[in-house]
Amino acid sequence: MDLSSFITSLTTSFIIFVILMILFAWLSAKPGNQVVYYPNRILKGMDPWEGSRSKTRNPFAWIREALSSTEQQVIDLSGLDSAVYFVFLSTVFGILLLSGLLLVPILLPISITEDNPGLVDSTGKNAFDDLDKLSMAHLKEKGNRLWASVIACYWVSLVTYYFLWKAYKHVSDLRAAALMSPEVRAEQFAVLVRDIPPSTEGYSKKEQVDAYFKHIYPETFYKSMVVTENNEVKKIYEEFDTCKKKLARAEIIYAESKKGPNSEGVRLTHKTGLLGLVGKKVDSIDYYNEKIRELTPKLEVAQNKTLKDKQQGAAVVFFTSRVTAAAAAQSAHARMIDTWTVIDAPEPRQILWTNLPKTFYEREIRQYVVYFIVFMTICFYMIPIAIISAFTTLPNLRKLLPFLKPVLDITSVRTVLGAYLPQIALIVFLALLPKFLLFLSKAEGIPSESHAERATSGKYFYFSVFNVFIGVTIGGTLFDSAKAIQKNPDSITEMLATSLPGSATFFLTFVALKFFVGYGLELSRIVPLIIFHLKRKYLCKTEGDVKEAWYPSDLGYATKIPNDMLILTITLSYCVIAPLIIPFGAVYFGLGWLVFRNQVLNVYVPKYESYGKMWPHMHVRILASLLLFQVTMVGYFGVKKFLFTPVIIPLPILTLIFGFVCSKKFYRFFQSTALEVASHELKETPNMEIVYKSFLPPCLDAHKSDGEQQFEEDV
Amino acid sequence: MDLSSFITSLTTSFIIFVILMILFAWLSAKPGNQVVYYPNRILKGMDPWEGSRSKTRNPFAWIREALSSTEQQVIDLSGLDSAVYFVFLSTVFGILLLSGLLLVPILLPISITEDNPGLVDSTGKNAFDDLDKLSMAHLKEKGNRLWASVIACYWVSLVTYYFLWKAYKHVSDLRAAALMSPEVRAEQFAVLVRDIPPSTEGYSKKEQVDAYFKHIYPETFYKSMVVTENNEVKKIYEEFDTCKKKLARAEIIYAESKKGPNSEGVRLTHKTGLLGLVGKKVDSIDYYNEKIRELTPKLEVAQNKTLKDKQQGAAVVFFTSRVTAAAAAQSAHARMIDTWTVIDAPEPRQILWTNLPKTFYEREIRQYVVYFIVFMTICFYMIPIAIISAFTTLPNLRKLLPFLKPVLDITSVRTVLGAYLPQIALIVFLALLPKFLLFLSKAEGIPSESHAERATSGKYFYFSVFNVFIGVTIGGTLFDSAKAIQKNPDSITEMLATSLPGSATFFLTFVALKFFVGYGLELSRIVPLIIFHLKRKYLCKTEGDVKEAWYPSDLGYATKIPNDMLILTITLSYCVIAPLIIPFGAVYFGLGWLVFRNQVLNVYVPKYESYGKMWPHMHVRILASLLLFQVTMVGYFGVKKFLFTPVIIPLPILTLIFGFVCSKKFYRFFQSTALEVASHELKETPNMEIVYKSFLPPCLDAHKSDGEQQFEEDV
Repeated sequence: MDLSSFITSLTTSFIIFVILMILFAWLSAKPGNQVVYYPNRILKGMDPWEGSRSKTRNPFAWIREALSSTEQQVIDLSGLDSAVYFVFLSTVFGILLLSGLLLVPILLPISITEDNPGLVDSTGKNAFDDLDKLSMAHLKEKGNRLWASVIACYWVSLVTYYFLWKAYKHVSDLRAAALMSPEVRAEQFAVLVRDIPPSTEGYSKKEQVDAYFKHIYPETFYKSMVVTENNEVKKIYEEFDTCKKKLARAEIIYAESKKGPNSEGVRLTHKTGLLGLVGKKVDSIDYYNEKIRELTPKLEVAQNKTLKDKQQGAAVVFFTSRVTAAAAAQSAHARMIDTWTVIDAPEPRQILWTNLPKTFYEREIRQYVVYFIVFMTICFYMIPIAIISAFTTLPNLRKLLPFLKPVLDITSVRTVLGAYLPQIALIVFLALLPKFLLFLSKAEGIPSESHAERATSGKYFYFSVFNVFIGVTIGGTLFDSAKAIQKNPDSITEMLATSLPGSATFFLTFVALKFFVGYGLELSRIVPLIIFHLKRKYLCKTEGDVKEAWYPSDLGYATKIPNDMLILTITLSYCVIAPLIIPFGAVYFGLGWLVFRNQVLNVYVPKYESYGKMWPHMHVRILASLLLFQVTMVGYFGVKKFLFTPVIIPLPILTLIFGFVCSKKFYRFFQSTALEVASHELKETPNMEIVYKSFLPPCLDAHKSDGEQQFEEDV
Repeated sequence: MDLSSFITSLTTSFIIFVILMILFAWLSAKPGNQVVYYPNRILKGMDPWEGSRSKTRNPFAWIREALSSTEQQVIDLSGLDSAVYFVFLSTVFGILLLSGLLLVPILLPISITEDNPGLVDSTGKNAFDDLDKLSMAHLKEKGNRLWASVIACYWVSLVTYYFLWKAYKHVSDLRAAALMSPEVRAEQFAVLVRDIPPSTEGYSKKEQVDAYFKHIYPETFYKSMVVTENNEVKKIYEEFDTCKKKLARAEIIYAESKKGPNSEGVRLTHKTGLLGLVGKKVDSIDYYNEKIRELTPKLEVAQNKTLKDKQQGAAVVFFTSRVTAAAAAQSAHARMIDTWTVIDAPEPRQILWTNLPKTFYEREIRQYVVYFIVFMTICFYMIPIAIISAFTTLPNLRKLLPFLKPVLDITSVRTVLGAYLPQIALIVFLALLPKFLLFLSKAEGIPSESHAERATSGKYFYFSVFNVFIGVTIGGTLFDSAKAIQKNPDSITEMLATSLPGSATFFLTFVALKFFVGYGLELSRIVPLIIFHLKRKYLCKTEGDVKEAWYPSDLGYATKIPNDMLILTITLSYCVIAPLIIPFGAVYFGLGWLVFRNQVLNVYVPKYESYGKMWPHMHVRILASLLLFQVTMVGYFGVKKFLFTPVIIPLPILTLIFGFVCSKKFYRFFQSTALEVASHELKETPNMEIVYKSFLPPCLDAHKSDGEQQFEEDV
């Protein structure tokens, strides 16, 4: 890629960014769009345009607000996990900034001023292009100037260690502060119990669990809640709930219409058949009232039956003390690992209930099967796409979907489809991949949503690094290279190293595109805005419907973090070979910090709180990127026939040691709660009944008095 | 080795065995030798020859007694660790017996009847020798008879899995039974706390520890005991103690002599100088009384000073509940791994007090340094021996130790020394190795004696397998082979496989020698008997001295188990190639069971009780032997050009899976106590003061009232 096309691409991206920014400033100032641009603040009951905001509304006001917000504000408004994400962004930003401060002013002049006419560049031409002259590829083989690159490698590594160590400590402090908070948090008083052995002698599971834990914790055991197979009762409850909502809606419409000039009011009617289109016409209020009367006893019967007969091999156990719950989650209760597994309870809202009763062996087997599927997906994802592409050729499409014939016969459509069908298959695959990986992670038997998202993020990271980074760099499919690598395992670093400089400019534009267009779309929220307005116009009837239409999603760590990691991997890998990429990387993370500060404070609502458990996951992957960079550099110095290449070899070893030390020192506290943290004073004695209720599925809680009685009886 | 020399060697060993057995029967029947042959029973206050024993004393009575003893008797008389050792012996015996029942009658005839004149045997001769005809080496290449060997491999593996699984379950039950016993055991109420951070603001360590644990366990915390640097007070206490003992001795002699005709009595005198040989002559009773009067206040001052000013960064913390202690030992107390490390407390008698205050990082570094030293020792132990041998040539000896000249000038001495000096160096090295490894293990910073012995046993196992088994088998130093292996890593199994059959008869005689001579010496206790009689005659003065002279040692797991493991590794590796070794191996473990049943019940007194923690260690090493066997067989089938060699490959994989499953299922309970086990009822409410006292070092406990007061004040 030559300089002019590089600048063209950059300028295009930048113009799109500016347009999106202007759109954002204009759209977000409209009061009707408040719910799209400030849903988090509205849900928290705060004024979206606080104080002076609305008056001096200028296009850059949000930047000032984002910069002046504190970490505590983020924690208050969006939870610890969001704060940890900002620690990640600022850490990486810091690494790239401090690396760039030394590398850019030193390495670029050294490369440019090198007199090296004998070299051929990446395109095979004898004269180096302007951009390529800035890279390490321009340096002479065996030259003394390579020493500058050696120093640069050490500088980047040391800066990374320093920032990572500081960040791990900081996150550990944040986590401790959150866990020792004097607020009563239900999940801190509970543990999950899985693999409950079959109960004997006619005792119910609940009696068995109660007896077991009462014996071990005679003073602090409060109550247990056995997980039940509640599909049936859930179905009835959902029907019941829908009826209630529809009744409420009909009543509101009736009440509204009464206020009008026609004082008799409009009573809604609907048809009972499919989608309300066919069948008998009935009065809605009467109909739903009747339905609710019918369902109430049915629901009660189903609830009782579920609580009694459908108890499964898992339970939530409640203690009256945080310390006991924290200690219990870390202790072996039974002699065998496959019975009475006790773990930390996640928040009730993020428990994957259906995974809880899966037995130990089932979980183990599922895990290995999933790992195998993921491995196959990463290595051979091109195969199913190729097969689908082969089937979706134009003649095949015409045969299989004859009703498309008239469309397919238009010449222009045919040309476009013919050219892009394989690419469309690939795009669809890539769009569905995170969902597929999340599905696989949940299928492993993981007990909580946050854990499943971490697992997904890990899988996606492997996929993106292997396929995007290594795939693009080596330039071709992994299969061809795999054969060469198999023959000579040492060659992988060399292969990576020789092909790296060629892809540098490709990745420069890739990163720029990512942040200009990506962040522009993110900030302006064009897509959610359009969807909201469409929904409000055509679908929403009640207040609740409107709220549902603008209710924001969460940040989506499962795909967000692997994408950031990919950018980091690219930037780190190129930071010495083509230092020009460092400012781009730094802008990606710096701008990301700004944009997401705004989004987190104003838009997104987190789905769960895992108290920063995401951090060790990110830490390890940052280190993995660093390791990849170091190993690649060892290979690249070898390609440059640098005699002192071995001086780089301590770096990967240092990274491994650093990672080992960090995980030894900090990791255990992220796995489980330290007792000294859990033993901090509470603001008030917890109301254990509220704690208990928060874990009760709503379908079993509908008729509280009954459900409670049932539980009480069993105690 | 041909048949006749094999039989000669076997017969010689057997004759030695018979002689030693007769000696045992004769010597153990003499009442004067009771203390050598039945010390454990005497110490337990039991009659050495119970009931009918003494009357029908025949040479085989001990066998009947050993066979009729139950596991519970072993546990009562010698603790759980001894019982676990018998589980190990009987498990291995079972494996070999069941393997042999199928392999010997099937494989031997198949080998003998093979018509294979074209083969050369291990000595290069064309005709197979009688013994070699019994081995798999005699089978034709690519022959169908090799299928029998394949089946044999599977049979041995499956039998091993079956017995190991049963044994792990059984040991786990034994451990649970011991840990849930209603007896009050001090160590079950305590935890060790290490890495106590520096105390601040003028608080003492003890106040800090008390405050920390009282906050976390407000209800079950009892007391803490900070580890002190007590070398000085120990020295004074030892002097004090010696004086007391000597005073008692002098008084006894005085009292005895008074009874005699000379009614005035003999008052002992001694000289105060070096070894009682020089200096002023004093009356012993007066002198020691005076000394004790002098030392008493000095000891008190030193005790107070130690307790106050020499507190170190480790402590023993006591709880009033077993469950709390067990849960505390498994929970992270602090957020960082390097502070407030809490682990299970070992028995007071086996705590390595000086290791306790070592900090986390010191322990980590020490561990890696020790691993490195052990690795170097295993690989290069021949180098220091060679250097020592080079220095201890005869001319050098004459120069360095001129006083030996007259001895060295005798021709016969010179010849023998010249021939055997290197071997003597090797023997001395091998004799000192276990002690050296134990020293290294303790230097790692391990907190308990039993753990240090396990670590030693592990190191010794590597040494014996690598050097004895692989060394002898490959026939030559490991160094030469290492080069070949480095060039082609696959060749190691092939190399092992080709050299295996040649060493089969060597190992046959080796195993036979081990059990005939080894067990004969063990049972007859010739060496301890001679030492005891010599000591009694020349050194012992008081009853206490005599008791000290016959007081038995413990079983010595650190060297015993690696030796057994070596035999097992040899037997398993050869069981299909030369099935004749199976009966020898079976006799080794069967006879071992008998002999040690006698020794454990009558002789040895265990130094500690680790509640069977040795078992996982043995289990893993049995599996490692099995894996070595399977991998070797894969290589050997390859050498035999057997087309279906891949059918063996699932076996090593199966072993790895089996080991993984076992360690997942059972191991955690061996690391720490399951809470359901610790929550069993106690016979009585424990007297916490006694529990606490049992951990107090005797030198700080001498003047109980004072020491206690000191501690009380601190609370």
